Amino acid sequence: MGAGQVSGTLHGVGVGPGDPELMTLKAHRLIRAARVVAYPAPDSGESLARAIAAEAIAPDAVEIPMIVPMRPDRFPAQEVYAAAAERIAGHLGRGEDVVTLCEGDPLFYGSFMYLHARLAGQFRVEIVPGVASLAACASALGRALVARSGVLSVLPGTLPDAELAPRIMAADSVAIMKVGRHLPRLRALIDRLELMPGAAYVARASLPEAHACPLVEAPQEAPYFSMILITRVEDPWLRPSL
Amino acid sequence: MGAGQVSGTLHGVGVGPGDPELMTLKAHRLIRAARVVAYPAPDSGESLARAIAAEAIAPDAVEIPMIVPMRPDRFPAQEVYAAAAERIAGHLGRGEDVVTLCEGDPLFYGSFMYLHARLAGQFRVEIVPGVASLAACASALGRALVARSGVLSVLPGTLPDAELAPRIMAADSVAIMKVGRHLPRLRALIDRLELMPGAAYVARASLPEAHACPLVEAPQEAPYFSMILITRVEDPWLRPSL
Repeated sequence: MGAGQVSGTLHGVGVGPGDPELMTLKAHRLIRAARVVAYPAPDSGESLARAIAAEAIAPDAVEIPMIVPMRPDRFPAQEVYAAAAERIAGHLGRGEDVVTLCEGDPLFYGSFMYLHARLAGQFRVEIVPGVASLAACASALGRALVARSGVLSVLPGTLPDAELAPRIMAADSVAIMKVGRHLPRLRALIDRLELMPGAAYVARASLPEAHACPLVEAPQEAPYFSMILITRVEDPWLRPSL
Repeated sequence: MGAGQVSGTLHGVGVGPGDPELMTLKAHRLIRAARVVAYPAPDSGESLARAIAAEAIAPDAVEIPMIVPMRPDRFPAQEVYAAAAERIAGHLGRGEDVVTLCEGDPLFYGSFMYLHARLAGQFRVEIVPGVASLAACASALGRALVARSGVLSVLPGTLPDAELAPRIMAADSVAIMKVGRHLPRLRALIDRLELMPGAAYVARASLPEAHACPLVEAPQEAPYFSMILITRVEDPWLRPSL
């Protein structure tokens, strides 16, 4: 960085769960103004984060896709983030801001931390929280996620049954994320725990192809972006609308 | 409702944690167009939900404040919601939409469920998820709320120590909400559990008067809208920036 040159800011911007209208005003403003935009992308198909923000991205913005294999159980490819961080650092060093698009909220099961950890020591980093998929799922169901003095546990569906069962039983409300191919096993577990009556399934909440139903009616195959919500509390004000 | 008259829709709209720019585009659009706006308000002082949305509310909109005593341990005054639901039902029955403003997300420790439970049987209800205070707190700290196969427990600080301690110890990440006057007790508990090094305090995240610091440096008195975040996972990518 040359003398007197001010380096840019790295913005980690949550773009919400899928509906572009669920971007915040701040996310929308920053993305529209961005000259450099980075985002995670699968190795085949479109980046969901980019698709959500597409309308706001300037046609001549520099784009930095971070192409990470979408295998749920695999450790995220750190080489991809290392290379992206280096490229982003180049822009920041030249005084250019970089907006990184993050599905949902950047700090809720997000990959933004891999950039943050590499760049926060050298550059100014600002994080814009977003609407989490969790909130969109509860909205799709018309059901409280948690209320009053209730306890909410957020669990990844990738955990084994032996770890999940006691955690499910200990909470008033449970959100199981990253359901995907684990759906049949998770459904059997919840059935064994006799919690089927309070369990619901939601996929792609807030998108046109959203699907919300009682877990017992869920399809056999679930997309990666799907969730199970279990409410145990016997509270007339929290009764599910499904 | 007269023959052929179509009743209105009740919108439960999350307005985010405090910064008006953290409203979603959808919340902003609905609030701007609203002819009738309802919101919770304390018995003294300003409604936070209304203050967040103030710029977008039409000057001639009908306003329905739901004045609920702000005493953290008290069961919300159901009479207030019953009266508000009746008044809102009047508007809906005349074919007018009603937008209810909700701090953060409507279904995350929100009071919107008290209206939903009373009105969803008769009227169309749509919920617009919002940025939760939880996400704003993590952003203020620059710290992942939860990552990869981690487990997040969301606990109300109003629970007794004997209920909190095992739940805190069982999770990778813990968010303690509704800290307020429980701060000294919670701080002592976290110290006894030897989790002080991973514990942070955030108040009024996203507002100009926001305060984020290690828990050990927290002030003696905390506002109701404050949170403690504890990260136990030893993960170099999740190291706190504080």
